[in-house]
Amino acid sequence: MSARPARINLERLLSRLEMLGEIGQVIGPNGERGCARLALTDADREGRDLVVAWMRELDLDLHIDAIGNVFATYLGLEPDLAPVMTGSHIDTVRTGGRFDGNLGVLAGLEVIHSLQDAQIRPQRSVTVAFFTDEEGARFAPDMLGSLVYVGGLGLEEALEIIAADDGARLGDELQRIGYAGPVPCPGVQFPESFVELHIEQGPILEDEGFGIGVVEGVQGISWTELTISGQSAHAGTTPMRLRHDPVYAAAVITTFVRDLTRHHGGDQVGTVGRIDIHPNLVNVIGSSVTMTVDLRHTDERVLLDAEQRLEQICAEVAAEEGVEISHRSLARFEPVVFDSEMVRLVEEVAKDLGHRTRRMPSGAGHDAQMLARVCPSAMIFVPSINGLSHNLAEDTHPSDIAAGAEVLYEVLTRRAGTPLTASGVPEQE
Amino acid sequence: MSARPARINLERLLSRLEMLGEIGQVIGPNGERGCARLALTDADREGRDLVVAWMRELDLDLHIDAIGNVFATYLGLEPDLAPVMTGSHIDTVRTGGRFDGNLGVLAGLEVIHSLQDAQIRPQRSVTVAFFTDEEGARFAPDMLGSLVYVGGLGLEEALEIIAADDGARLGDELQRIGYAGPVPCPGVQFPESFVELHIEQGPILEDEGFGIGVVEGVQGISWTELTISGQSAHAGTTPMRLRHDPVYAAAVITTFVRDLTRHHGGDQVGTVGRIDIHPNLVNVIGSSVTMTVDLRHTDERVLLDAEQRLEQICAEVAAEEGVEISHRSLARFEPVVFDSEMVRLVEEVAKDLGHRTRRMPSGAGHDAQMLARVCPSAMIFVPSINGLSHNLAEDTHPSDIAAGAEVLYEVLTRRAGTPLTASGVPEQE
Repeated sequence: MSARPARINLERLLSRLEMLGEIGQVIGPNGERGCARLALTDADREGRDLVVAWMRELDLDLHIDAIGNVFATYLGLEPDLAPVMTGSHIDTVRTGGRFDGNLGVLAGLEVIHSLQDAQIRPQRSVTVAFFTDEEGARFAPDMLGSLVYVGGLGLEEALEIIAADDGARLGDELQRIGYAGPVPCPGVQFPESFVELHIEQGPILEDEGFGIGVVEGVQGISWTELTISGQSAHAGTTPMRLRHDPVYAAAVITTFVRDLTRHHGGDQVGTVGRIDIHPNLVNVIGSSVTMTVDLRHTDERVLLDAEQRLEQICAEVAAEEGVEISHRSLARFEPVVFDSEMVRLVEEVAKDLGHRTRRMPSGAGHDAQMLARVCPSAMIFVPSINGLSHNLAEDTHPSDIAAGAEVLYEVLTRRAGTPLTASGVPEQE
Repeated sequence: MSARPARINLERLLSRLEMLGEIGQVIGPNGERGCARLALTDADREGRDLVVAWMRELDLDLHIDAIGNVFATYLGLEPDLAPVMTGSHIDTVRTGGRFDGNLGVLAGLEVIHSLQDAQIRPQRSVTVAFFTDEEGARFAPDMLGSLVYVGGLGLEEALEIIAADDGARLGDELQRIGYAGPVPCPGVQFPESFVELHIEQGPILEDEGFGIGVVEGVQGISWTELTISGQSAHAGTTPMRLRHDPVYAAAVITTFVRDLTRHHGGDQVGTVGRIDIHPNLVNVIGSSVTMTVDLRHTDERVLLDAEQRLEQICAEVAAEEGVEISHRSLARFEPVVFDSEMVRLVEEVAKDLGHRTRRMPSGAGHDAQMLARVCPSAMIFVPSINGLSHNLAEDTHPSDIAAGAEVLYEVLTRRAGTPLTASGVPEQE
């Protein structure tokens, strides 16, 4: 493989990842270099300004829409045709890494830069985009920018969203950082297709020795917040038979969630990530517990079944322990199935380039699942070292970054149509 | 019973409870009148000053020791004999009630006041004491003043203790509020006996319809803090088989604690009151959990067995889930068995006064368990409404307060020896 001339300039891509990663950089206790660029903060503006400057250097056709999504287009030979689009996001979580989102945006930019270097102009235009507030870490829900772009959430409603932490209004912050653009939302001319390169954010590819993940779809997500009300009492003086202990109820539900994943098996995942006890003291039986249950599955019917079983165990434990349990849905997304032709193209290209591929669902949400509502879409995954993401130590080997970017190059150019697309495929080496 | 002339003046006792309760008063959301008089704060000083003023009004022999314990003695006919002692504490937890501790001190004062009113001078002196920092809510450990008094903790060591919340040094605070007394610690002449009146702080007496609890001893207490280290990862992208989830491990341990109490039955209680997850987010598998396990039993062998089983389940779940679990003992007190003669006396007196009595262990720690190290000791419990304590809504019916104070009167006078002791027993009415 090493003899084949590179489609993209890996050094340049790594250097841009490095530069963008320095904005909002957070150094971990063991020297990990992560990022905190929450959506629409000063750090986000600085990151946006840097990427926009690179887009301008390439003389791309730049558009910013009313929710702050940025689109940069390399015009094709037939600029009236709908463009092929790639992209992702550059906002991060509070203790995020340098690759989540950033890789997809900068690899897209690198594909365009490489096309220009090689003086290749495809039939269709190629657009690289970054979408506002994909993480949802400051403004809920996540994937907000792409959701508004495809018409899944009204612009006015989105602009009114208040940050959970600092109380800022989304519309005000967008104005403040100068990214409330003139292009209307939802979009008017949607792309011909969309493909997003992203780190896996999980351990499967590394664990099983695959180089490229061919993403077939996104798991359905069900987030439920449970509030359990019991009766606070003295841990020493209250006999077991008179207790109404919400912490015990929370523990029963937590072990149930694990049992449920064993029962459903396969792709079913279930997680209790948050438990808040009041008053949370060693010698006091809790008065109340707030906890979250995160259930995901690729099959909507299985996900519905899991939700139903969760409700059932809650009713059972509430009756048994004499506590009250109320439910609140924090998020609910049905599973997304990517366009089969796009998925096959990603797989074919990756195999053509000599990579071991694995078809897999995405466990996390991505902008591509929003774009799938308006055009044929797919995703390319590259391995995450130790499966880590949303973590300062998030990392991906440069060889995997190169592989992912080259697959992206090839998918975009094949989709955009260019006589030179076939020039670098392995068969010819 | 109502025909019998009262031994004590209930109105005066309730009025003093009311006045002391107004110092550091905290009004709850539903109008509950609770207290925050953390040890050695300004509110504690104010409370101490009020009680000491009442002691002076009765012309009692007042002594303050080097850890701030206050002893007020009504001299008997034979002042060289060791006194009988009663007492408790007047410090409270942050959201405490008006009865925990206060009742035992003010009922003891009321007994002496009533003896004076009736011009009864017993053979032995009668001492009422309040001990410093029984709650341990500001300076750990709890029962600190009585522990130092009986020689269980060195004075110098105790004075160096730093408040968890505000960083103050115990010795400095004691000086500041003017209660670092001249009497040496540990005590030199210990009392002939000690009896403490206290609210039950639990629901058993009310639930089972008893008026007086005859406390046979104090449950052994074992507090363990467990720190569970797992591996933080994305809740959507990490397959179940690759997880090392400390939250799941914590849930297994929590349900085990409940199973353990079922297994041991009887007086065994076990509580998980505190669980702190890091990072505690809906879509992130926890990296670590800190939790506490509170185990109590009246039988040291059973408590040791419970601790051993807890260690075993921790080892099992650690191996199974691939997490690390470390243990730290936060507190460990062996069960205390009160003097059988003193216990029988409390029971006999309560029955003589026509009360339904129930022998029971104390689930909570009390100053009496420290005094039990140096003299025959016992406790009298009166019912807590709804079993509530360490709660602004803590309350006890006036009739139960009267009953408890009269039992206290009778136990103290029988123990102190006075020719008039038998004048008011029911048999003579």
